[in-house]
Amino acid sequence: VKVSELGQFALIDRLAEMVEATRNEKMPSWQNLIVGIGDDCAAWRCDGALQLAHVDCQVEGVHFRPEYGSWRELGWKALAVITSDVAAKGGSPRYALISLTIPGSMEVENITDLYKGMIDLAKEEGIAIVGGHISRATLFTVTITITGAANGNILLRSAAKVGDKIAVTGTLGGATAYVEMIERKLKFNTACIIALKNTFLHPHPRVKEGQLLVAEGVEAGMDISDGVMSDMRHICRASKVGAMIRANTIPINPEVRACFDSKEALELALGGGEDYELLFTGNEEIINRVKAKSSIPVTIIGDIVAEHPGELIVVDANGKPVSLSRTGWDHFAPPAGSFLQEG
Amino acid sequence: VKVSELGQFALIDRLAEMVEATRNEKMPSWQNLIVGIGDDCAAWRCDGALQLAHVDCQVEGVHFRPEYGSWRELGWKALAVITSDVAAKGGSPRYALISLTIPGSMEVENITDLYKGMIDLAKEEGIAIVGGHISRATLFTVTITITGAANGNILLRSAAKVGDKIAVTGTLGGATAYVEMIERKLKFNTACIIALKNTFLHPHPRVKEGQLLVAEGVEAGMDISDGVMSDMRHICRASKVGAMIRANTIPINPEVRACFDSKEALELALGGGEDYELLFTGNEEIINRVKAKSSIPVTIIGDIVAEHPGELIVVDANGKPVSLSRTGWDHFAPPAGSFLQEG
Repeated sequence: VKVSELGQFALIDRLAEMVEATRNEKMPSWQNLIVGIGDDCAAWRCDGALQLAHVDCQVEGVHFRPEYGSWRELGWKALAVITSDVAAKGGSPRYALISLTIPGSMEVENITDLYKGMIDLAKEEGIAIVGGHISRATLFTVTITITGAANGNILLRSAAKVGDKIAVTGTLGGATAYVEMIERKLKFNTACIIALKNTFLHPHPRVKEGQLLVAEGVEAGMDISDGVMSDMRHICRASKVGAMIRANTIPINPEVRACFDSKEALELALGGGEDYELLFTGNEEIINRVKAKSSIPVTIIGDIVAEHPGELIVVDANGKPVSLSRTGWDHFAPPAGSFLQEG
Repeated sequence: VKVSELGQFALIDRLAEMVEATRNEKMPSWQNLIVGIGDDCAAWRCDGALQLAHVDCQVEGVHFRPEYGSWRELGWKALAVITSDVAAKGGSPRYALISLTIPGSMEVENITDLYKGMIDLAKEEGIAIVGGHISRATLFTVTITITGAANGNILLRSAAKVGDKIAVTGTLGGATAYVEMIERKLKFNTACIIALKNTFLHPHPRVKEGQLLVAEGVEAGMDISDGVMSDMRHICRASKVGAMIRANTIPINPEVRACFDSKEALELALGGGEDYELLFTGNEEIINRVKAKSSIPVTIIGDIVAEHPGELIVVDANGKPVSLSRTGWDHFAPPAGSFLQEG
């Protein structure tokens, strides 16, 4: 069986099972582990505190192309994307390790520009870059590991409960709309282009918001990297619950709304990835407190339900299922089929 | 300037300078940092304990080729190589994060075999694999981040002192000899082939030995990944001291001694990488205590000196400099020149 036939998530499940079989509570590593494979970050006890860690990789030609933006912008984005995983746990980002594979023919300036972008974000978020690795290769890739600190509670994918409201921070669809614009050579006005580009290349990890969620008592959440549908399904599977999302409540990015027809705008907002907003669940009272204190918009988009555990449905204003063709990012996925076929 | 013109270590120096300029003691990350870029692991305080972290990447066609060994062997080696960095600090390995880039056409079985190899080592060393990332790419790479725990003291590259003896664990040259054997299609007897292959593919990270070094009061050390000459130079530069290595004292791997002429055997032992033994310095009394307690051989190979800080010389039994053509691994290095030209 080829990796492309099995798919990214089935492969991860298989590897996670192999690892889980090695669990050994006699070892200090397993004893102190709180969250292992299958969440935004691993988490373990370190004396009184919690340590968080996560790794992510950006591959030239897969996650970015030269025409998407500058090396400095890529640097910002690469570190922002992974900082978002610490935000998704309600933690504070601390240390980053950078591993690069570089073709020898690459300009040194591109690499130093990449670092400038990472440093821009590192300064803003108080992250110290503390190590790394450089290897020659035929392909440029940047793999970043981030660690974070948390005191007490963290957000988990596995903590959603029936009766919870589902909510998101910010607006959705902008990042994928930018890629669509470039790949399909769509013509938009300059203001739209700048706004979409900024959404894609300059995401702000929702660190403060993640901490606010934990402080207000939210227990379940993650960041939106693969798209609301794909990421919500991760929460549903980890929490063994179902989700009902109301299409008419989705906070679609205003430029996406302006530049695409309403059907495609909804698809981009629900199925497009790389928004790096937070997706979380909690009772309505808690979410209303979060709304009141958050400096960015927080929108309720649906409910956690007991039906169809592990899956979600999207309904229109009349409660009728909406069929979407874009169902989220899988690295080895065949062309996206209808979501409803899966459910 | 191209990366291949600047070279791996000059590029790392340049990036490290950029990062160092961002040091900000108001941030908790920088406040708690003990070791940043430029050592085997980063280290920071986490409540009472120390946390260690390091990242390493293995690239197909650069670090390994299919003919070198099986996927399971590669898995063992990839995790062993990085566990060695925790050993090099005298720490206990704890958690690993695995990031893979995979061509879609690759067999799933190769990936699960790779994981089997990593799991073999993880079980032996008490490491929990707690997360990872999988991305599609045209090139197979495996990037591993490891964390470790340490109580109190750790070995540093920067702690060598004039008057210290230089010592190594185990024997040297076997791993690179295996690669030479394959690449130059050399014909050895079966016992030699098996022994060399084992040295290259099945290194045992010197975790217990690293902890013994710290317990006995050794302060300076690292693991031998790029070769004694290259790695000793890292210690010399970080500690601002010189080193004199006595060629006739080098514990050359017995199969290397048997299969290569004496000049090349010495070159492989001093200039060949991937032995993953420990290289350390300390006063003779401490090293003798380590020798007495270590279950693997410990050999004194030279002295830390005040002359030529940042550099090392290799001398023969009569104290005359030895010229070597193999000076250690640099990913983007032009063909190796004479070491003495550098010194």
